Amino acid sequence: MDNSALKNIRIVLTRPSHPGNIGAAARAMRTMGLRDLRLVAPREFPSDEATTRASGAVDVLERARVHERLADAVSDCVLVVATSSRHRELRHETMDARSAARELIAQSSKQVALVFGNETTGLTAEEAGICNIWAHIPADESYASLNLAAAVQVFAYELRTAATLPDVLQMMEQEFAPATTEQVAQLQAHFERTMTEVGFFNPENPKRLLPRLQRLWARARLEVEEVNILRGFLNSVDKLRK
Amino acid sequence: MDNSALKNIRIVLTRPSHPGNIGAAARAMRTMGLRDLRLVAPREFPSDEATTRASGAVDVLERARVHERLADAVSDCVLVVATSSRHRELRHETMDARSAARELIAQSSKQVALVFGNETTGLTAEEAGICNIWAHIPADESYASLNLAAAVQVFAYELRTAATLPDVLQMMEQEFAPATTEQVAQLQAHFERTMTEVGFFNPENPKRLLPRLQRLWARARLEVEEVNILRGFLNSVDKLRK
Repeated sequence: MDNSALKNIRIVLTRPSHPGNIGAAARAMRTMGLRDLRLVAPREFPSDEATTRASGAVDVLERARVHERLADAVSDCVLVVATSSRHRELRHETMDARSAARELIAQSSKQVALVFGNETTGLTAEEAGICNIWAHIPADESYASLNLAAAVQVFAYELRTAATLPDVLQMMEQEFAPATTEQVAQLQAHFERTMTEVGFFNPENPKRLLPRLQRLWARARLEVEEVNILRGFLNSVDKLRK
Repeated sequence: MDNSALKNIRIVLTRPSHPGNIGAAARAMRTMGLRDLRLVAPREFPSDEATTRASGAVDVLERARVHERLADAVSDCVLVVATSSRHRELRHETMDARSAARELIAQSSKQVALVFGNETTGLTAEEAGICNIWAHIPADESYASLNLAAAVQVFAYELRTAATLPDVLQMMEQEFAPATTEQVAQLQAHFERTMTEVGFFNPENPKRLLPRLQRLWARARLEVEEVNILRGFLNSVDKLRK
């Protein structure tokens, strides 16, 4: 099989607690042809336990990049999918693992990310705000708690399977140019600046304004052109004031 | 979701070496609604490590049954699926995990089994001879070695997914009455006896005759009616000699 649809897909483990899970996740990735592992503030890494559990996938661990914040780990990505059995209440688009895998493969001519939260606490609200889609593995209602590496294995398997489906690969050819997470972050910063300057936003009394705005961008999965339009508008507002 | 399509599906771990894998496999099963775990000659069980790794699925471990031989663990099953990345050379029907899951669900109005071999050595030739179908998880050519519990997780996930598909559930309604593994074993024993008595088979010089016959029955997935016909024929031969 041609693995090129998989090479731009990174797996991000956010604040993993157990080094063994990092190693087992690396092995799960490697068996399915995924090699780009990112670790956000791991409690312990590198570690002997991770290396042991990685078995034949030590190369994935050696190449793994460590980031301080999730935003840094996905800054160049056009699609960020969060996984969780929690956070169902958030008004993000939610899909099952199979559909999410198809979506990731469809966008994989550019950089995309699949994000896993901490084993116990999941993702913070701020981290969740960066993600475009929520994905979950359908599971037993009475005990839905997959081990972290087991969840990585299922998603990695679905990604590999999706990468063999002709109709999914065809979706890679589309016109639409999605914005990167960094471009969206710049838009958000621009809104914050301009809204503060015009007196609409009061940093002393922020309420939920900025997170709400952030969530809107993420959910909408902004295109580059839309970011350009909004920033052009903000530039006009900025000039007006000078 | 209605789990009734899953309740007759057992997971069989054959000679597992690592207690941790037993516990992690139990957890993987439980998250997908599978509860019938069978262990064939485990190196160590019960064990603290298995209990720890089972996490919220300790009930699956507590209910797990231990058997001496694979044949005992699947004697009442009408379909036995073996999993492996090896043994591709054998002339059994081979399918991928998704197709095998559909097949198991389609037969799950009766007892069916999904069998995993030892972590290193897989299944013996004798064990393989009992299984009707071989299933594999599509994996990276350069490193296809999934951890045992990770493989259980992927298959369990595919079983749960297949159990939600209306067309698969419809297949459960078919007429065809498959023979149990025990009925096939009795047929095999009857053939051995009769062939010996008529002088066709020489136990002193067995060659590959019996394993070849066993493999034929397994691959053909005999129906009850066919077993009855063949045994009726053997009975006639037996009488002829008296």
